[in-house]
Amino acid sequence: MKTNNLWDKGQSKNKDSEIFNNFTTGSDFQLDLLYFLKYDIKATRVYAGALTDCKIFNEEEYEYVEKALDDIEKFRAEGAIDMNSPYEDCHSMLEYQLVLRVGSIGKKIHTGRSRNDQSLTMIRMYLKDSGLDLNFKLNELASEFREFSHRNKEQMFIGYTHTQQAMLTTLGHYYNSFEEQVYDDAYFLNNIITRINQCPLGTGAGYGSTLDLDRQSISDELGFAKVQRNSMYCQNSRGKFELMYLNACSQIMLTLQRFASDMILYTSREFSFFDVDHNLTQGSSMMPQKKNLDVFETIRAKSAEVMSYENRVQLILKGLPSGYNRDLQQIKEVIVNATNIVNECIEVTKLSLQYLIPNNENILAAIKPDIYSADIISARCETMPSETFRDLYKSIDINNIADHKPEDIIKIRKSLGSPGNY
Amino acid sequence: MKTNNLWDKGQSKNKDSEIFNNFTTGSDFQLDLLYFLKYDIKATRVYAGALTDCKIFNEEEYEYVEKALDDIEKFRAEGAIDMNSPYEDCHSMLEYQLVLRVGSIGKKIHTGRSRNDQSLTMIRMYLKDSGLDLNFKLNELASEFREFSHRNKEQMFIGYTHTQQAMLTTLGHYYNSFEEQVYDDAYFLNNIITRINQCPLGTGAGYGSTLDLDRQSISDELGFAKVQRNSMYCQNSRGKFELMYLNACSQIMLTLQRFASDMILYTSREFSFFDVDHNLTQGSSMMPQKKNLDVFETIRAKSAEVMSYENRVQLILKGLPSGYNRDLQQIKEVIVNATNIVNECIEVTKLSLQYLIPNNENILAAIKPDIYSADIISARCETMPSETFRDLYKSIDINNIADHKPEDIIKIRKSLGSPGNY
Amino acid sequence: MKTNNLWDKGQSKNKDSEIFNNFTTGSDFQLDLLYFLKYDIKATRVYAGALTDCKIFNEEEYEYVEKALDDIEKFRAEGAIDMNSPYEDCHSMLEYQLVLRVGSIGKKIHTGRSRNDQSLTMIRMYLKDSGLDLNFKLNELASEFREFSHRNKEQMFIGYTHTQQAMLTTLGHYYNSFEEQVYDDAYFLNNIITRINQCPLGTGAGYGSTLDLDRQSISDELGFAKVQRNSMYCQNSRGKFELMYLNACSQIMLTLQRFASDMILYTSREFSFFDVDHNLTQGSSMMPQKKNLDVFETIRAKSAEVMSYENRVQLILKGLPSGYNRDLQQIKEVIVNATNIVNECIEVTKLSLQYLIPNNENILAAIKPDIYSADIISARCETMPSETFRDLYKSIDINNIADHKPEDIIKIRKSLGSPGNY
Amino acid sequence: MKTNNLWDKGQSKNKDSEIFNNFTTGSDFQLDLLYFLKYDIKATRVYAGALTDCKIFNEEEYEYVEKALDDIEKFRAEGAIDMNSPYEDCHSMLEYQLVLRVGSIGKKIHTGRSRNDQSLTMIRMYLKDSGLDLNFKLNELASEFREFSHRNKEQMFIGYTHTQQAMLTTLGHYYNSFEEQVYDDAYFLNNIITRINQCPLGTGAGYGSTLDLDRQSISDELGFAKVQRNSMYCQNSRGKFELMYLNACSQIMLTLQRFASDMILYTSREFSFFDVDHNLTQGSSMMPQKKNLDVFETIRAKSAEVMSYENRVQLILKGLPSGYNRDLQQIKEVIVNATNIVNECIEVTKLSLQYLIPNNENILAAIKPDIYSADIISARCETMPSETFRDLYKSIDINNIADHKPEDIIKIRKSLGSPGNY
Repeated sequence: MKTNNLWDKGQSKNKDSEIFNNFTTGSDFQLDLLYFLKYDIKATRVYAGALTDCKIFNEEEYEYVEKALDDIEKFRAEGAIDMNSPYEDCHSMLEYQLVLRVGSIGKKIHTGRSRNDQSLTMIRMYLKDSGLDLNFKLNELASEFREFSHRNKEQMFIGYTHTQQAMLTTLGHYYNSFEEQVYDDAYFLNNIITRINQCPLGTGAGYGSTLDLDRQSISDELGFAKVQRNSMYCQNSRGKFELMYLNACSQIMLTLQRFASDMILYTSREFSFFDVDHNLTQGSSMMPQKKNLDVFETIRAKSAEVMSYENRVQLILKGLPSGYNRDLQQIKEVIVNATNIVNECIEVTKLSLQYLIPNNENILAAIKPDIYSADIISARCETMPSETFRDLYKSIDINNIADHKPEDIIKIRKSLGSPGNY
Repeated sequence: MKTNNLWDKGQSKNKDSEIFNNFTTGSDFQLDLLYFLKYDIKATRVYAGALTDCKIFNEEEYEYVEKALDDIEKFRAEGAIDMNSPYEDCHSMLEYQLVLRVGSIGKKIHTGRSRNDQSLTMIRMYLKDSGLDLNFKLNELASEFREFSHRNKEQMFIGYTHTQQAMLTTLGHYYNSFEEQVYDDAYFLNNIITRINQCPLGTGAGYGSTLDLDRQSISDELGFAKVQRNSMYCQNSRGKFELMYLNACSQIMLTLQRFASDMILYTSREFSFFDVDHNLTQGSSMMPQKKNLDVFETIRAKSAEVMSYENRVQLILKGLPSGYNRDLQQIKEVIVNATNIVNECIEVTKLSLQYLIPNNENILAAIKPDIYSADIISARCETMPSETFRDLYKSIDINNIADHKPEDIIKIRKSLGSPGNY
Repeated sequence: MKTNNLWDKGQSKNKDSEIFNNFTTGSDFQLDLLYFLKYDIKATRVYAGALTDCKIFNEEEYEYVEKALDDIEKFRAEGAIDMNSPYEDCHSMLEYQLVLRVGSIGKKIHTGRSRNDQSLTMIRMYLKDSGLDLNFKLNELASEFREFSHRNKEQMFIGYTHTQQAMLTTLGHYYNSFEEQVYDDAYFLNNIITRINQCPLGTGAGYGSTLDLDRQSISDELGFAKVQRNSMYCQNSRGKFELMYLNACSQIMLTLQRFASDMILYTSREFSFFDVDHNLTQGSSMMPQKKNLDVFETIRAKSAEVMSYENRVQLILKGLPSGYNRDLQQIKEVIVNATNIVNECIEVTKLSLQYLIPNNENILAAIKPDIYSADIISARCETMPSETFRDLYKSIDINNIADHKPEDIIKIRKSLGSPGNY
Repeated sequence: MKTNNLWDKGQSKNKDSEIFNNFTTGSDFQLDLLYFLKYDIKATRVYAGALTDCKIFNEEEYEYVEKALDDIEKFRAEGAIDMNSPYEDCHSMLEYQLVLRVGSIGKKIHTGRSRNDQSLTMIRMYLKDSGLDLNFKLNELASEFREFSHRNKEQMFIGYTHTQQAMLTTLGHYYNSFEEQVYDDAYFLNNIITRINQCPLGTGAGYGSTLDLDRQSISDELGFAKVQRNSMYCQNSRGKFELMYLNACSQIMLTLQRFASDMILYTSREFSFFDVDHNLTQGSSMMPQKKNLDVFETIRAKSAEVMSYENRVQLILKGLPSGYNRDLQQIKEVIVNATNIVNECIEVTKLSLQYLIPNNENILAAIKPDIYSADIISARCETMPSETFRDLYKSIDINNIADHKPEDIIKIRKSLGSPGNY
């Protein structure tokens, strides 16, 4: 059995060894290729510069290496790398391809570094980029909610607590609540990106090296906000930083699944608060009348998937001693899956809004005067300070609430952030 | 946009609809093709027979359908179905291919059934088969542990509590503990297969149909132990049955990760209780002396993955109202992944045993006489009934325990299930 | 600082030691007192008999011990033990109280045993008893569902998929689906009790002892189905057995929260399928018209608590090496909480049924003829074998379905397990 | 049955109603009393001021209310409130006690507010205070690690990857890695406190009220950073904000359990890198020689508890529709438990450091020259640029590495953040 494993010294290995190797490697290389290699190339380029400062490469060698890395990046971007190559991971592939291009010089690239800090670095670059991207998409989604909020400022709607009618509201107010929620999800994500914006490159396997690398320059060139200093801490932060990123993903998914849950409820025949455009619905193989909101059910299920990823990372981290452990390798897949799901769910939610057409008639028909009780009591408290809220609450006959025009009730709902003043 | 969705009545749909459709469908068809279609074909064959009893098909039609299904199965088994076909799921594909072969007759196949009971049925068949297969593999693994237990009956070993030396034991006793544990894991799995061995076919979308299908015969022909009666319960058991299966998977993984955790500890240089054959180890890209047990670290991480699947299913199920909901579709992937992981981890654990060679010298060197304290006290209690355990416990000078031959201690450890009598 | 810790040899300890001791001990003693001590006393009585067979106690001593244990049990049952006693756990308390009563003889009771196998034994006895009790309660709940199923056999109801009206059903059929589900939950629980019905007593700290205890008799006398043989496996099964028990608890809670979710939906004003008796509802402090189903919302939340306990146990077990580890102590609280919650939720669900009064008028008003589509097609397939299901499905005009008497539709729903034949 | 429920209008209720009431209420009142009432009083005082601005109270009434609230707070602080009072929650108790003191005036206090925004507000105040307190404790812990880091700058230690010796390090470097980690945990916590520092008071049941409350002033007076505007979003953020707080708690516990896991390993007899003072250890009831690190095992288990709380909150939130749902009430207990655990674990960890005495002799004895391989290669790469890392890696004879003084190796480990330069 022949491998391209970086650590392989040519010792003969048997068939079982191949099984063990495949088991630990899994689909790591494919994952790296699709999501991480570009960052590894970029970080390697910067690292080569730092090695040059340390006199490991001379200027000429550095130029060769730089060009070769550009070439490998081109090769990668064109999809010219075989997904089934016998590489353990992209780090092995990168050194192999470098040596192929620049010969023996390439064998210097790993001086003072380890796959441990390489992985850390490229994962962090991925998280930063993905985080920025998600942030952009969240802002788009919030804008869409804002747009729908403005458009439906006058559209009556019903506010619920305990899945029971609570107080009148407007659809504009409802959409606005998601606008604010999505912005907060974006702020939280940003906070987390700020936390993980630390450069670990140059810390080797967790214990540094003899090279006096200019880690500040490396960090700056890679666009990190700061150097993550203690080399052991760099390793021990692996998994923990990914978990924070997943925390943000879960917050987003909690928002999206809330909206999805609402819509499944509000579009049931019994509610019928929205007419659903047929482009958004799916049918049944047996019941021809069915128009189902599979899209929102899938979002609900996908929120479960993302949240379970936090659980997985916690289970992976639990009980590990300090220093790199191979267990951590399994987290790469998790962050990629979470990122892809969150992206897709944001996109699908944004698209779905226009296919949900409020049915004003049905909404108005569902409003019964007792929903005005709290407003009536409160308004009376304002005009008649001699009466008290609790007495009015206890004495009001909820079966004989006078009817009102809904818009009149909204108008007097003056408190900041309420349907009449948001 | 053109789909082969069973429920499609040809209404024109736009680009976004395609996005929604792709989002809900995901990789369902590929998953079905690889893991479930064969069961769907088999169940469809039996269902066609039941429809014939109900006079939906006449005998001649039935024969055509039967032959066509055989042909589709051949086609499937040969891998002749394109993974990228535009089918929503294997159910759509099956009806489509049937109609292709037998024409209009094929359009009768869905009478009285729904994709809901089809999916339920094929998933259950998959779980039953996978469960039996896992059970077989668990028995093999237990046998392997038994074999190693016999082989190491005399090999001294150290028993720990709190990661501290507790009492002397033998490696045979240690391996035997895993033999028993694996057998219990297999029994638990069997119990669960017994629980889920219920046939839901013939319950339609959850509310039955007008057809007086002979559900008992359907169940018998498909090899189920009993009919799952109430049609709504059939649907409401979806997810719950898969969760039970995952419960069994987690029990197995907890056993395997325990063994893995032990081995990572026992093969550390400080313990050195086993010499590890180089075929089982992986190296470092930076530190040439490293020989790591990546295999066991990966098992540890994979146990986290399997356990997180239970969490995912719970999160999916939480809050769903009665009746089929599309959310449940996302569980298929989970059980397939869990099955594959558990299979692989059992296999790899079994293979690994022979590459872990007990280092008798190191083990003996690690034994200090204070490890005999409990045995010495206990033996004295037996011979001198006038003395009490607690007084001896308090008065024994643990820094001056007389040395013993380890085998003599094991010999007197008489209680059933202990190293001297297991 | 003075402790009654069994292992204390009187070495002086400082203030911090007390903090550490309190931290590890937590509320263990209180928990033991309330839930486990009675089992520990019972097991100790049997163990004393086994020690007598081993000549540790003579007959006279045994009688003293037996009487003292009876006395301690009386003392316990009368609640005469101070919850704030300075005992680390009930095992320490038991030995202490025994010595108090029989003097030095009592100091023999721990010969050949460890708190490790004591804890294991008493926890298992607790799980067995609690499991039997839960099983009884589940049968009562199933009977109640059966009763309501019979009573509502003719009461029309609507069957949903995707939270959308799917097909007509009856309320009897709906309740029956929960009857079957609860029975299956009970069977699963029974399977698990069967799995954990193994006696670990006599295995000491996990490595046995020099005593040739008659473990089969111990097991028989304590009412266990079998001896759990390998002493290390006994320890390694800790947590895993509790997890199985929690698996059963989660299955139950998934059923209860499903019913709760349905009821919250069906009692919303928009559905109004049930009138809710005011005894079952809670109000709002602000909105006088509110009648909320807080009970079912709490059940939903409690299901989350129980499921999270599985997660906690998995996280606790993850990464632990073989042999007892103190981490396991934290699982006792979890099984007690889960048991209490499940008990209470079963009770509350059973009680709630009579306060949910089906509103026939509203249910009938919600039925629109298109809900009969699948029945109409299916019935036509039966009478006109020349027509095919799929063609009828595609051609039926769902906006012009002829109206039917609901009971006529139920009558033709003949398939076993459907509303017309369950 | 008589209750003090705010919403009770005196309708007669039966025995079951009491059971339902107790079930939903649980230990809410006790929890409120111990942890939340003081915030509710404070917020009520500010709210009374806002009501005065709205002319609900006149100045005189306001003064009465203010004094009464001060009195209630005194009453609370003195522990004069019976834990077993028949109040549903502290909100009911507060209004009741207020009316008791100021009569009918007190019945105005609930004008325009709901228990929903009261709970939200007091929980957030609790989270903010607890967060600040945890932050302070984290800084103390980091300082303690820093102190131990300085003290052990020259103390040799071994760095691990894969639980295998990787490279030489110092104990100072090890402690420093935790110092940095704890600081980062504190920063993350701070970020989260910043996120949740939003005032929801004045949003009623989620839909505002007719009162034009000066929410900015309310927010300022309560010390919040900003008003949380949209009233529905306020309600929909419940649970999500608590989850963020738990995210920070988990990060802290992951750090503490990592240190705990290390110490359990490093203090095993086979490692023996630390001598453990007997004040920190616990014994065995059976094996007199045992000295166990139960403290760290308990921390490990407690980390599982805290992480499972995130899981619980996610499960609670999953599937809930918009608006307040009673399920959310169950989250209060979770954040209190998590806070208490994290506090205690930080404290215990900090205390434990001084009881772990590095055993220099054992550490040095465990160092074998092959641990210097990476340093030797790297140093050679620096001095002989003609040689390449990978060739040296492949050719070095790891069984014949020249011995070095450990301090010489540390000296050349120059990279920033490494043991020689951190």
